[in-house]
Amino acid sequence: MTDTINAAYYRGEKTFTVETTTAEPPQAGQVSVRIAYCGICGTDMHVYHGNMDARVGLNRIVGHEMSGTVSAVGADVTTVKVGQKVVVRPLDHCGDCPACDAGHVHICHNLKFLGLDTDGAMQEIWTVPAHTLHGLPDDIRMDHAALIEPVAVACHDVRLSDLQNGEDVLVIGGGPIGALVAMVARDAGGKVVVSEVNPNRLAIMKKLGFDTVNPAEQDLKEEINTRTGNKGADVVFEVSGTQPGVNAMTECAATRARIVMVAIHAKKPEIDMFQFFWRELKLLGARVYEPADYEKAIQIIVSGGVDADTVITDVSPLADIQSAFESLDASPTAMKSLIKVGTDA
Amino acid sequence: MTDTINAAYYRGEKTFTVETTTAEPPQAGQVSVRIAYCGICGTDMHVYHGNMDARVGLNRIVGHEMSGTVSAVGADVTTVKVGQKVVVRPLDHCGDCPACDAGHVHICHNLKFLGLDTDGAMQEIWTVPAHTLHGLPDDIRMDHAALIEPVAVACHDVRLSDLQNGEDVLVIGGGPIGALVAMVARDAGGKVVVSEVNPNRLAIMKKLGFDTVNPAEQDLKEEINTRTGNKGADVVFEVSGTQPGVNAMTECAATRARIVMVAIHAKKPEIDMFQFFWRELKLLGARVYEPADYEKAIQIIVSGGVDADTVITDVSPLADIQSAFESLDASPTAMKSLIKVGTDA
Repeated sequence: MTDTINAAYYRGEKTFTVETTTAEPPQAGQVSVRIAYCGICGTDMHVYHGNMDARVGLNRIVGHEMSGTVSAVGADVTTVKVGQKVVVRPLDHCGDCPACDAGHVHICHNLKFLGLDTDGAMQEIWTVPAHTLHGLPDDIRMDHAALIEPVAVACHDVRLSDLQNGEDVLVIGGGPIGALVAMVARDAGGKVVVSEVNPNRLAIMKKLGFDTVNPAEQDLKEEINTRTGNKGADVVFEVSGTQPGVNAMTECAATRARIVMVAIHAKKPEIDMFQFFWRELKLLGARVYEPADYEKAIQIIVSGGVDADTVITDVSPLADIQSAFESLDASPTAMKSLIKVGTDA
Repeated sequence: MTDTINAAYYRGEKTFTVETTTAEPPQAGQVSVRIAYCGICGTDMHVYHGNMDARVGLNRIVGHEMSGTVSAVGADVTTVKVGQKVVVRPLDHCGDCPACDAGHVHICHNLKFLGLDTDGAMQEIWTVPAHTLHGLPDDIRMDHAALIEPVAVACHDVRLSDLQNGEDVLVIGGGPIGALVAMVARDAGGKVVVSEVNPNRLAIMKKLGFDTVNPAEQDLKEEINTRTGNKGADVVFEVSGTQPGVNAMTECAATRARIVMVAIHAKKPEIDMFQFFWRELKLLGARVYEPADYEKAIQIIVSGGVDADTVITDVSPLADIQSAFESLDASPTAMKSLIKVGTDA
């Protein structure tokens, strides 16, 4: 049996088309998920801008920040059942490379990212490997649940930082990712300061209850020293992707601080190695997430540790995906735009 | 009672003078040590070149890589006794800064380094705080014991790397410090490859039994991949202080590798943050040592884990300190030059 479903295809040149296709039944080890909501990720925006055409092609269904309900399970699948609310951890590893051998399957040398290297969640029914699923509590709000994937990224960043209750945290960059990192760090007991230059983003960070510094107007290092008794920040998250952000991360770090590199720097920044020596700093690269990060993210969404209603600034139906990308691209204040994929969600 | 002793003073402009002075008896909490040998550190060479005049002045006795015997103890000192062989861990902390509060006294914000910020070991009797002393076994060779301080630096680097038995190690830079790091890493069970471009240094590394790669002649990344089944090095020590070395440290690193920044980069290098993200690399700043590193270094010197006779390439009496600095400065093959400070050592 096949279902006729709606799906949004990336066709190149900043264009998505919504077309009908057929959803095949799941094979052994697979699960079909009826998608409720799917968020637009920064990576999806890179696809929209044509920066990833070589990787995704011009016939790709994108989307991976999703929530949904199991609609069918393939043979041998016992971990989830039809009707269960789920999210997908969109990573498929090879099982046969040095990273997999070492147990770091989330950064497999041949990792497939579902929704980029395969079709994704911007379709009514998405069929995925069963091992990628995490079950959700029955009473979770499905729009909120679409934030679990980006929150899991933040949970991974915070877990790798080994943040302890009461430590001083500096988040450099107050965009959508910085906001999630800041909220997860606060949830873990961190005393968080957010550095951001954009007034719109500063206003959102204040609305979310954060102490903020605008380094264009204030001396960030001095502000951090004042707040910490000249100690500096115990944990720094560099989310800005800028050279000034990289300068600040070493200037504001306490002795033996852990600096998590959240931003992706396409160009190699200049980094103050003397400060790494002088204060025995640690720099930690962090990529995607592991199962524990998903479980933590589910817990934070359920508990309200992330203010989902403030983070979700726009919801559009799948039919309007084109205008949703256009609006998000043009908006200075948008945080997270969701696509309501299912008509009955 | 005071003793008349010989001491070498840095007088500026690449000049040391050996003069007589008086050694005062130790005060409460102090210990006087009759110096046997004192090595010339790279930092002492910076002093010689005039790069540290503002810090050390022109009336300074330098030297901190020493071995000696307790000659007198001040009131309340019970941890060592007269006649005991000792080395000095030349760090004096303030006890009242955020780093000290956090227990990281070796990187105290107001750290005094004995032999730079105070007078050092290039004198026959050196009086130091009792808390800086480590006792030595009676049968240790005192020339070998003068290597304990630089070996402790290497022990600190290796300890912070969390190197496990059997892991693949790349040491970038095969000078005197790289050689010690490589030997300590090998002693800890690492499978060590040393990258070095200087033929003289390559020859010494081979003599010390290391697998070497000359990146000017071979593709270092390919060589490391070949040796590790495309995994990369689990632990990388960047000892070169060069931009090519910094490039190699990320190119050759395994997934979740630990990179220890041993070199002091006066200029900010460009660092491949994308690779930190992609492979979840860790960069660790390391500075001086803690007591455990000294104890480990003593053990390694006693066990022969460091080939002291190969490392010590020159020994001169204190009277010849000027020519010892001049020779070391001019030599392409020197590893460690010792000054025999005591006439009866």
